[in-house]
Amino acid sequence: MSLLVVGTVAFDAIETPFGKTDKIVGGAATYISLAASFFTKHIFLVSVIGDDFPQETLEFFRKKNINLDGLEIVKGGKSFFWAGRYRYDLNSRETLATELNVLADFVPRLPSPARAPDFVMLGNLTPAVQMEVIRQLIRRPRIIAIDTMNYWMNNALEELLIVIRSVDLLIINDEEARQLSGENSLRKGARKILAMGPQYIVIKKGEHGALLFNKRGEVFFAPALPLEDVVDPTGAGDSFAGGMMGYLDKTRSVNFENLKRAVICGSATASFCVEKFGTQRLEEVKNFEAKERIQNFPKLTRYTMS
Amino acid sequence: MSLLVVGTVAFDAIETPFGKTDKIVGGAATYISLAASFFTKHIFLVSVIGDDFPQETLEFFRKKNINLDGLEIVKGGKSFFWAGRYRYDLNSRETLATELNVLADFVPRLPSPARAPDFVMLGNLTPAVQMEVIRQLIRRPRIIAIDTMNYWMNNALEELLIVIRSVDLLIINDEEARQLSGENSLRKGARKILAMGPQYIVIKKGEHGALLFNKRGEVFFAPALPLEDVVDPTGAGDSFAGGMMGYLDKTRSVNFENLKRAVICGSATASFCVEKFGTQRLEEVKNFEAKERIQNFPKLTRYTMS
Repeated sequence: MSLLVVGTVAFDAIETPFGKTDKIVGGAATYISLAASFFTKHIFLVSVIGDDFPQETLEFFRKKNINLDGLEIVKGGKSFFWAGRYRYDLNSRETLATELNVLADFVPRLPSPARAPDFVMLGNLTPAVQMEVIRQLIRRPRIIAIDTMNYWMNNALEELLIVIRSVDLLIINDEEARQLSGENSLRKGARKILAMGPQYIVIKKGEHGALLFNKRGEVFFAPALPLEDVVDPTGAGDSFAGGMMGYLDKTRSVNFENLKRAVICGSATASFCVEKFGTQRLEEVKNFEAKERIQNFPKLTRYTMS
Repeated sequence: MSLLVVGTVAFDAIETPFGKTDKIVGGAATYISLAASFFTKHIFLVSVIGDDFPQETLEFFRKKNINLDGLEIVKGGKSFFWAGRYRYDLNSRETLATELNVLADFVPRLPSPARAPDFVMLGNLTPAVQMEVIRQLIRRPRIIAIDTMNYWMNNALEELLIVIRSVDLLIINDEEARQLSGENSLRKGARKILAMGPQYIVIKKGEHGALLFNKRGEVFFAPALPLEDVVDPTGAGDSFAGGMMGYLDKTRSVNFENLKRAVICGSATASFCVEKFGTQRLEEVKNFEAKERIQNFPKLTRYTMS
């Protein structure tokens, strides 16, 4: 099995009520790939960076079996950079700086073996770039999943709707689902979005968990683990998507029961991500820790009605 | 078994993005009692109203086996009145008017049979009034539960802490738990609040469900049902508490497993409450509907890890 991940590999500078970082490694595809690597050893990462990007991180990716043949390195170019500040409750943030740099001219080029993956996760990118990836696939994957954001709904809705029609799974947050559907009720919103094409939608609610819907009106709720400390929410949504898709790639089945398990794995992976700044916690998680956390998840919601 | 409910019985005027009401029947004890009556037939309601309160509502209470011997009716007095407006997302509201009226001089007087209840639910009231109820009990109930609000934390913290030390279960929302504990993490906050006295705490998160904690560090998460339409959140928290305490009174057991079931029943009852304005939906719910909704709850979070 194999998972193709396309998205940003970048630098972030993050400020939360609990501290701030200098430029550290970030980007959607970074989080997605690291999270997926908890579950699968066959990941193709397709992205673009400048030659300012640290070699150690690339080495670390390779150690995690993340194939970098599709990672374009622009000589003399600067990697995408984002700076942001979270407010006290960590539920909202403001962007302090966005420098597209090498991302501005990014045209993804899938290396041959990455053109027939079993699963695809397209991080938040211009819909045109997401579509270009889909065009380069030579075989229909089991699931193509995408993330997106309000910005593309406001500025490239037509292209975005074409992408949505072409994929199987949308993984977006509650605010995005409300804007895309025009419905305040997430249940109604999910139904409207599923009518746009995809078989499944996952609506992420941050610290409040995530909802999975299919076209038959079934719904599943995965809680977020109540944590001792949330230090930095950056990358949580991408870690969720990566954990989910990594689990699917490992287990292959795409029925609703297995999607439920995948959503739980996404939630568990995201719960690690937010415990430290940036990718730090994801990088240091031991296999037994990940296993233990996933095994403890059912306890959180399990009960029997007498 | 029997459940003593003390709280406001009042008029509300409610404005939401979906409509507005004239003066309608509301109040914490109204919602708590109606919700509890889904499960138990032995409810003592202790409160105060003016003689402006509709006879039909009192008749309806009696039909639901809600004993009104402890409901003081002040001749020539006006019932407590609250007016509020919800914002678009229904998660925040502003108070437009609060008229204490007969509530200003309320001293609860428990009729004899209400002094030895098995369960007690004290709605949001002055801590001094909550304490007065506890003083009038002639036997230790299985569980005394209270609700409270930020206002009392700001204006009567010392009295509130004495009440909290005297009770078994605190049922408050996430914002209140954060203020009371001074912790942003609900897990840490719960631990701090449990150290103040109670055996259990339920932290309500509105449309995001509720968390139950005990002193042994166990935690249970009950989701909120994703609804087609939320019309009016007024009384949802009280319906939650009423459903939870009504279920406990019916089933008697107060171990953690049964508390989990009770929290699920609270969530199910609250999910009815918000579907129409005021108490309307709670009043019209049929037994089979309540049963069906509670039976469907486990589906929402059930999965097996293969």
